[in-house]
Amino acid sequence: MTEQLRPDGSLRHLLTLETLPRAQIERLLDRAQVFVRPLGERPPRSRSLAGLTVANLFTEPSTRTRVSFELAAKRLGAEVVNLEVQLSSRVKGESMLDTVYTLQALHVDALVIRDAEAGVPELVAAHVAPHVSVLSAGEAHVSHPTQGLLDALTIYQRKQRFAGLAVAIVGDVRHSRVARSAWHALRALGVTDLRIVGPAALLPAADEFEGCARFKSIARGLEGVDVVMMLRIQKERFGEADVPDGEKYFTTWGLTPERLALARPDAIVMHPQPMNRGVEIASQVADGPQSVIRDQVRNGVAVRMAVLAEVLGARGGA
Amino acid sequence: MTEQLRPDGSLRHLLTLETLPRAQIERLLDRAQVFVRPLGERPPRSRSLAGLTVANLFTEPSTRTRVSFELAAKRLGAEVVNLEVQLSSRVKGESMLDTVYTLQALHVDALVIRDAEAGVPELVAAHVAPHVSVLSAGEAHVSHPTQGLLDALTIYQRKQRFAGLAVAIVGDVRHSRVARSAWHALRALGVTDLRIVGPAALLPAADEFEGCARFKSIARGLEGVDVVMMLRIQKERFGEADVPDGEKYFTTWGLTPERLALARPDAIVMHPQPMNRGVEIASQVADGPQSVIRDQVRNGVAVRMAVLAEVLGARGGA
Amino acid sequence: MTEQLRPDGSLRHLLTLETLPRAQIERLLDRAQVFVRPLGERPPRSRSLAGLTVANLFTEPSTRTRVSFELAAKRLGAEVVNLEVQLSSRVKGESMLDTVYTLQALHVDALVIRDAEAGVPELVAAHVAPHVSVLSAGEAHVSHPTQGLLDALTIYQRKQRFAGLAVAIVGDVRHSRVARSAWHALRALGVTDLRIVGPAALLPAADEFEGCARFKSIARGLEGVDVVMMLRIQKERFGEADVPDGEKYFTTWGLTPERLALARPDAIVMHPQPMNRGVEIASQVADGPQSVIRDQVRNGVAVRMAVLAEVLGARGGA
Repeated sequence: MTEQLRPDGSLRHLLTLETLPRAQIERLLDRAQVFVRPLGERPPRSRSLAGLTVANLFTEPSTRTRVSFELAAKRLGAEVVNLEVQLSSRVKGESMLDTVYTLQALHVDALVIRDAEAGVPELVAAHVAPHVSVLSAGEAHVSHPTQGLLDALTIYQRKQRFAGLAVAIVGDVRHSRVARSAWHALRALGVTDLRIVGPAALLPAADEFEGCARFKSIARGLEGVDVVMMLRIQKERFGEADVPDGEKYFTTWGLTPERLALARPDAIVMHPQPMNRGVEIASQVADGPQSVIRDQVRNGVAVRMAVLAEVLGARGGA
Repeated sequence: MTEQLRPDGSLRHLLTLETLPRAQIERLLDRAQVFVRPLGERPPRSRSLAGLTVANLFTEPSTRTRVSFELAAKRLGAEVVNLEVQLSSRVKGESMLDTVYTLQALHVDALVIRDAEAGVPELVAAHVAPHVSVLSAGEAHVSHPTQGLLDALTIYQRKQRFAGLAVAIVGDVRHSRVARSAWHALRALGVTDLRIVGPAALLPAADEFEGCARFKSIARGLEGVDVVMMLRIQKERFGEADVPDGEKYFTTWGLTPERLALARPDAIVMHPQPMNRGVEIASQVADGPQSVIRDQVRNGVAVRMAVLAEVLGARGGA
Repeated sequence: MTEQLRPDGSLRHLLTLETLPRAQIERLLDRAQVFVRPLGERPPRSRSLAGLTVANLFTEPSTRTRVSFELAAKRLGAEVVNLEVQLSSRVKGESMLDTVYTLQALHVDALVIRDAEAGVPELVAAHVAPHVSVLSAGEAHVSHPTQGLLDALTIYQRKQRFAGLAVAIVGDVRHSRVARSAWHALRALGVTDLRIVGPAALLPAADEFEGCARFKSIARGLEGVDVVMMLRIQKERFGEADVPDGEKYFTTWGLTPERLALARPDAIVMHPQPMNRGVEIASQVADGPQSVIRDQVRNGVAVRMAVLAEVLGARGGA
């Protein structure tokens, strides 16, 4: 496992929240909060990363996450280059590393990597030069650390605490990097009542999500929770074992106002987007007063600014 | 219909020229003229939109228009992000709005939207937060307002007036947003002899283009005009009713030097590009002394600077 | 042949090294060297091209070269726009020129053009306005002048001379623009022992590469050389005449440590990338102590900065 911290304890890479010390997570959340502005106000800007270069290297498309990282870097004064690369799988690891060495030789300081295959961000982090940082922007089903941080920040903004909260993660937990990173973050931050809720075929293997209660009924899973984190369901899951397809999924698993009423009255509703409205979530809920889905997006760019500032800060400055 | 103006009369969105007051159109043209520089001179630059973010959200490809908006925004100091999104049509409206809410939450201040489906720019404008502006960069066959403005500006630069001009719009008027926006602009600006010229199958329905004379012969349509606006013909039109295909189209409808000679000797020739040379227009004409096609492009970036400055100006400033 | 130099002898376009005077090549190398920084140090930045606009116009994908030009331009303060255009071949020349006229009218000052068809950069250069510069970023099999310059710079950094060096270019020389531009540069700079090495079917026609010795055995071709320039082999070559396919190619033509041992002990190994590891080159060699492949990339951005500064310098300055 590549070390994410430098010998002095500062953050160098962000590949996963699984092994990140609680103090480091809290530090990133504090730092991100400073970059948060209400909708309609100007986002903060600085030149603290002027002269540095950030490359977004995406092998699977994700316009939203790419734009969020791009704006985070630009608002700190960095240059940004975007690369969408298709790598044939036979030589993928090698080609990825050669691309990374190329970017490094072009004086890129941070690599933001999104890849559908497990292990790629870590492979890259293990090979870059000491001054280069690697940030995962989503790794297969394994990890999506900036998403985990923005989810934690969003919860904290509304609840002002983690201890004592009940959080339900609902849907296709098995294949979800969002769920895994949320679990890593919330566990570290002291959430003890963490529930995973979904059809059996979409719950993770028994040795995963240790300490989480498992629910195969959405009604029971949502009972009394403070936070409902909905996940996106991929259409290719429909028809698997006990996963009902299309409209039936909504009937059994969709978050409706009625089901949300089972949670605490002040419960918040989250979704990593893009949403399948009418499949995993009703539009009434997605756009309703308990939804904090747009806060998540706003917090996403703040979290990415915090992470970039943290890993590159010592090298920055015009 | 979403209101394009703010209560104080200033421009907030630019979705169509159809309902824009003449004074507002004139104001945009005046403002655009200030940004015009001769070829070879440096374009004007300012920091008046520093700290603001413009997103180009294109669901159909249009490199030229995207680059024109991109340079307009950058030359005023704004950050620009480009998104090319493919939205499945079944959930298009919803997905588009979710993408827009995401961009808004990322502190995007203006959305430049290009879409092949009618109604999308207006749908978006109806849903964004009060501080966000929406600019259409081309909406189906309905509207292309910055094109209409740049066409008007180009005519004014050469003719120094609109009253009393005769203008012929030639070709596939039926499917053309360029023609519609030209018609809206020129009608508002006082052009009374506005002609639409093309094969019957490519002329608009009888209740459209009110006040325009219709010609099914290019020779008669061009007689004595001051301005010839050629339109691009899509190959998929060939073979429809009375639309001759390929080379025959040129024989019957192409703008040749001989046909252009029927217009006034100082008539100008316009085309929105990309051109099908040898189909709707002869290269001799496109590159000839009466062509102002490259002026149109130059004016396009000036018009887009004016529009961005107008809708965002009050929020801008480093 | 379009003149690359202005009447005062300064560089206006960079289309090929074939006709570039030695003094001009040396001047570009000197200028590039100033922009070189060790890995881990900040790249130099200036505002010398502030207010100018560079367009990357690529009709075949090449992420690395595009990013290299993009960073070169941005680090000199220019605005950069990227365009990937697909042009149908029937009307390619015309469409390309219309796109170029559009960019020129948008006040683009330099066009970086990559195209799979021979003649396109020169066609464009012959048609742009006097203040616009055209830079080839790779033209069919014909020319890749910035690659030739970065290869020469890389050799000079390690050998401090060109005279008296023995250089072997190995592999698919016939289809390689990299080989041609290296040959142009090195011949001009005084390398006299220049060898082309490869299977007969991949060696160029007899009237090309004048003055180069030809080798159909890699062992003999590498004997005593100072520089080994490996080329990428395209999979579509396998099976042609005497070109063994896949793994067999490596057996006969791949650069292994054993073969490299036939060169001088201080020989350097180059590759333009992307590499087919295990096909034309062994990973041991690509990543070994004699490899300067990453230096080539670093030098690439320095060379592109030098070229941009050279062609645009007189117009630049904020």
